[in-house]
Formats: sequence, structure tokens, C-alpha cells
Amino acid sequence: MTSARVVTLLTDFGTADYFVAAVKGVVLTINPLVSLVDITHDIPPQDIETGAFTLLTCYRDFPEGTIHVAVVDPGVGSSRRPIVVRAGGYYFVGPDNGLFSYVYDRESSVEVFHVTADQYFRRSPSPTFHGRDIFAPVAGALSKALNPGALGPQITDQVRLTPLAPTKDDTGKLNARIIHIDRFGNCITNLTPGDLLETQSFKLHVNGKVIETVRRFFTDKHGPKEEIFAIWGSAGFLELAVNGASAAAVLGARRGAPVFVE
Amino acid sequence: MTSARVVTLLTDFGTADYFVAAVKGVVLTINPLVSLVDITHDIPPQDIETGAFTLLTCYRDFPEGTIHVAVVDPGVGSSRRPIVVRAGGYYFVGPDNGLFSYVYDRESSVEVFHVTADQYFRRSPSPTFHGRDIFAPVAGALSKALNPGALGPQITDQVRLTPLAPTKDDTGKLNARIIHIDRFGNCITNLTPGDLLETQSFKLHVNGKVIETVRRFFTDKHGPKEEIFAIWGSAGFLELAVNGASAAAVLGARRGAPVFVE
Amino acid sequence: MTSARVVTLLTDFGTADYFVAAVKGVVLTINPLVSLVDITHDIPPQDIETGAFTLLTCYRDFPEGTIHVAVVDPGVGSSRRPIVVRAGGYYFVGPDNGLFSYVYDRESSVEVFHVTADQYFRRSPSPTFHGRDIFAPVAGALSKALNPGALGPQITDQVRLTPLAPTKDDTGKLNARIIHIDRFGNCITNLTPGDLLETQSFKLHVNGKVIETVRRFFTDKHGPKEEIFAIWGSAGFLELAVNGASAAAVLGARRGAPVFVE
Repeated sequence: MTSARVVTLLTDFGTADYFVAAVKGVVLTINPLVSLVDITHDIPPQDIETGAFTLLTCYRDFPEGTIHVAVVDPGVGSSRRPIVVRAGGYYFVGPDNGLFSYVYDRESSVEVFHVTADQYFRRSPSPTFHGRDIFAPVAGALSKALNPGALGPQITDQVRLTPLAPTKDDTGKLNARIIHIDRFGNCITNLTPGDLLETQSFKLHVNGKVIETVRRFFTDKHGPKEEIFAIWGSAGFLELAVNGASAAAVLGARRGAPVFVE
Repeated sequence: MTSARVVTLLTDFGTADYFVAAVKGVVLTINPLVSLVDITHDIPPQDIETGAFTLLTCYRDFPEGTIHVAVVDPGVGSSRRPIVVRAGGYYFVGPDNGLFSYVYDRESSVEVFHVTADQYFRRSPSPTFHGRDIFAPVAGALSKALNPGALGPQITDQVRLTPLAPTKDDTGKLNARIIHIDRFGNCITNLTPGDLLETQSFKLHVNGKVIETVRRFFTDKHGPKEEIFAIWGSAGFLELAVNGASAAAVLGARRGAPVFVE
Repeated sequence: MTSARVVTLLTDFGTADYFVAAVKGVVLTINPLVSLVDITHDIPPQDIETGAFTLLTCYRDFPEGTIHVAVVDPGVGSSRRPIVVRAGGYYFVGPDNGLFSYVYDRESSVEVFHVTADQYFRRSPSPTFHGRDIFAPVAGALSKALNPGALGPQITDQVRLTPLAPTKDDTGKLNARIIHIDRFGNCITNLTPGDLLETQSFKLHVNGKVIETVRRFFTDKHGPKEEIFAIWGSAGFLELAVNGASAAAVLGARRGAPVFVE
């Protein structure tokens, strides 16, 4: 491991309280040379799936050796395990509740360590704030080239969420779903180019509406207003969008809404 | 060019999605030594004028050589040009849609380059996320002392917004307008000290209300409550304010509301 | 003083305007080597108590020598004094309006300096933006190992808020209150372990409801749903919480609500 300098943070802490600052202060106290980057702190409270999706869509954009600290942790203080993951040249620190599932699914080489070496924790960790008292000091220690194997035993029974990939029904039809709605109201589905390789053209059925058009980019001055179209999005998934409006509003769709491919 | 270390980001991406993190990751992958500073990511979606105004009000507060990356980009993926601007000792990277207009208006020496050297882009740029795939890597390259002339040809027909300056009507009266409303409800007009040089005293007419008082600072325990007053604001423009309340709410005024100077 | 590298910012500026960026740009112009960390910019406008509480709960998590810049400043431009505080190995820069009160109460050694050396200010400071024109350049100067005594005379009559500690009524009962409500709806009281040392068990009365249970952590699958319980929180205060819901909503309580200890 070369000396990692970037430590990212992804939490559901919001930005109004002292939570994020406390985590950063602890990391900087251990290693003042890290470069801290916020992924987001606006994950909806305790929404592990959104946390996992958001991490998936950007962790590879960071320099190799980056330490991604993710804390969406409804079970804080209970017996759920703190873990460190090494995968694809990156490190991940957080609770063992599925937050890193989509990383496990994507990377070919994944090592997961149950963090038990409490000499790296803050003394008397608060049972309600492991972000500050366990995950931050562990990330600080890792950033100084600590081997993750020194933190505890390797495990293979880590918690996994249902994979993102769409399923096929009895008739061979793809059952997809909306896995995220972004700030602009674009609806990200779990369809990837691989799912539609054999398909020349397709129709999508969402909430009683049919989408047949695939566009290359959002703005099309010649396209009809309010038309819902599909577009291959920047995260690698098929998205549903509307020119100059929120597709989620036009479709009346929420995360989890089924998308049928015809 | 001395080696620029500070890279700022101004976008309409919000902070809940992966967009900002992806941009930062790409910049840090190219140059881990830059110091990243968020100007804001809360520009209303696709609101180029607010983006241009916000950049105007702070770009000069940064160290010389700072690279300002601004992405408010309704035309992403279309034929609008990516540009790099060198002006006043600063660099600007973003779409050619008017975002840098007020910089052009303020600086005496402005060079604009159409970025065509796609060896500096990420491979296969997403048509929907030039922030990550074009502007971020270009900013990273610039931060390592690349000459902007190496990115593409200089142009002079860059897109410009209507200038901020107020106009005069047939009778010589100044027609001004509200160009921004800040977090505190203060209404920033486009009037500068130069516009009112010849004026001993003035009255402002906004939404049927008349403002005659000019104060030096916000708090005036002796001033009447709810009184609307004018104040020379920190961005260099005349602002309309109310002691302890939102002037925008008291005036019922929005951005763009006309302000007549008498 | 060793050379401080971390400068934190706590303000009520929000993140949509240019205010925070301007402050950061000025600090970086003076000292490009500082590491800037946002505590929060979402303090409710002009709410000095929330600013003071938020600073209290995290300032000690940062490396020794950190400079905490706090700007919640309803009196900006008036005669309230700019101050620098040295306490507990940290530095604090901001207005003398009580923002640092809880630091004074906690630290045994506190020195407060009235900043009068205006050669460290920006030229012609805006009467409405001392964050940018006074506090930022003073923090920048301090970060380069300036002695705070060089900034102005030491004072002892700094403004203090009412201390956080609960009071006792005639009958010896503790009168406490809710001092903060966090993002998750947890209600933080001003009760510390020291206040309840002599107590074997206690009941809390809030808004007509009685709380008798103390838990160690938030999640308890065996605990009844919607039950309000008390928990020793990560900031060192007793908090009122509800498993999977907002205690503030369930209690109908706001900041300042009285809490009686029986």
C-alpha cells in the first residue's frame, strides 16, 4: 500500500450538526496530511441502499489507495460489526450492514476484515457515535499505511443487499426497477448496457406510461416538450429523463418503482 | 503561470448525489496536490445567471492562479463549446453559455480558448456529465501548469449574457433591477457606486414601495422595525434590507424585479 | 505556538451564496497551506446559542493549535468587538457576542484579546461582511504563527451567554431544558453525568410526558416502538430519543422546552 492521502466521507449525518466536523477533526488529529473529501452527508437517514448506490457511482473516480469512510448506521452501538474492506485498489471503512454490497458485486478481488483491534479506537467509544470514535480513527490509522490485516480477522460472511441487477420473469421478460432519483428528477434504473445487448429496440413500461425513445443527451430543442425519454446515464445505468423537467414528477414514480422491458 | 494549487467548484449539482464527489475524485487523481474549495453547489438547476453572479462576487478573493471550475450546463452533450478563460490572473473552466460573462465585463484582459484537445478528456466522455469527464480533467491538467493555449484555439465570439449594469430610459432615469436575493432575504440590485456618483440623494421604487434611507450596517437598534433601507453591500452593489427580517418577503420582490431610481 | 494548519469555519451563511467561498479565498490567499474544514454553515440565521452549542460539541476533536473561526454575527458593523480567544490549546476568531461562551465555561485557562490591529484587516472592510474582511485575514495571520497578543489588548469583560448548566429550584429539584434538536430529532438536554451523580434512578418530565427508561444505544429491537427513552449522547449530554422516529416530533418539543428531573 502506498501512503493514501485522500479520505472520503459518505454519511446520513446532514450538515447542520457537529457530526461531520467531529469525524474530520479526529482523522486530522491522527493524520494532518490527509485530503478530506465529502461525497455527501445527505443520504436520507438510515437509508443504506441509497448510501450503497451513491458510493458505487463514484468510488472509482478517486485516486488508487483512497479510503472511503461510509457511515449510514441504524445499528450503531449494537452488535453489528465494524469492517474494513480492500477491493479494487480502494479501502472502505464502515459498519457491516450492506453499505459496501455493490462494491463486493463489482470488484473481482474483495477482502473484508472485522475490525476488533480496539487500540485503534478512541477511548470509551460512545455507543451512539462510532463514526467519530471507531471509523474515523481507523481511517486515520489506515491512512498512515497500516495494513488492514492488523485490524482484525478476515471474514467472508459480510452482509449483502439484494444485488442491483434486474431479474427475469417466467416469460423471459426483464423486470427492472428505479434505484435512484437524482436532484434533477432523473430516474436511474438498474438496467445496464449488458442487460439490453440482445435487444435491437425496447419499450419501457413505468407507472402505466410507455417510453420508447432513447436519446444521447438531455437537451434536444427539436424534441417535444414533456416527452419522457431514456438515456444512458453517467453512472452506467439507463435513466429516464424529461427535457427541462423532472421525470420523477412527470412519471409520478418513486425509488423502487418497477420498470418492465418489452 | 505559477503552479496553481486552488481549484474551486461552482455547480448546480446539489450535494446529495455523487456528482460533486466524482468531479473532485477526477481532479485529485490527476493532481493530488490541489486544494479543492466549494464555492457552492446550490445554484438553482440550470440557472446560468445566478451562477455567473455568484462567481463574480468571489472569484477575486482567491489566490492568483486559482482555477475556477463552473458547471451550470443545460446544454451538456450538445454542441455548446467547452472553454477555458484566462482573465485577471485567474483561470475559468466550463461551458460556453455565458457563465463567465460578468468576468469578461469586469476584467480588462480576457483570453478565451475553445477546448478541443480531447487527449485531456476522460476516455469516452459521458454525454450527460462533462463536469466529470471534460471539465475536471482539464482543470487537473491546468493545475499542473499546462498552458491554456495547448487546449485549443483562442476565440472571441464567446457567449455573453446581458450585462449587469442598469439602463437609462428616455428621460435619463436609471432603470435598475434586483439581480440576486441572498439567504437573509437581502435584495441585491445592480446599482454600483459609479451609477449614483452624481446623485446627492435618491429614492428607490420597488413593487410600489419607496426606499429613501441608506444605512451603513444592518443592525440599528434605533431604526424603526420593518423599515426597508438601502445599504452598500459586500459584493459592491446596493442592497435592500430590513432590520431582522427578509427584505424580499417585506417587498414581495423576486429576482428580476425592476428598481426605479428617482 | 506550533504552526497551526487547520482552520475551521462555523457560520450562519448557508451554502448557496458566495459568503463561505469569499472567507475561504481570503484565508488561502494569506496562507495557502492551511487545511480548511467546514463545521457547519447551517446555523439558523443569527442564532448565537446554536452556534455556541455546535462549536462546544466538536472543537476539542481537532488537532491542537486549530483555529476555529465562528461567524454568527447579528451585530456586524456595529460597535461589538472582534475578538481572538486562546483556550485549551485552540484559537477562536469571531465577534464578541457570546459565541465562545461555552468554551469559556469549559476551559480552565482562557485568554481573550480585543482585535484592534487593523493592519491585519482587508483594506476598507465592508461594514456588512466582517467574516471576509476581518475574521478571515486575522485567522490567516494567526495560522502563520502570529501571537494573538499582537492583535490587540487582552480583555476580561467578554460577552457571556447564560451557562448551559441546569438550575435547582427551591425544593432542590433540577430544572433542565432542551438545548438542541439534531437532524434525527433527538432532543439534547443540558443534563450531564455530573448532574445526576447522586441519583440512582430518575424520571424526566417533558411537555406532560414522563421518561423513565435509559438505554445504551438507539437500536433495540426488543424495545417497544415509539417509546421515548433517555440516552447518554455523544456530546456528553443526556438526550431524549425514540427508536426509529423523531423524539422532537413525538414529544412536540422545541429547543428551550423545560425538562424536570424527579
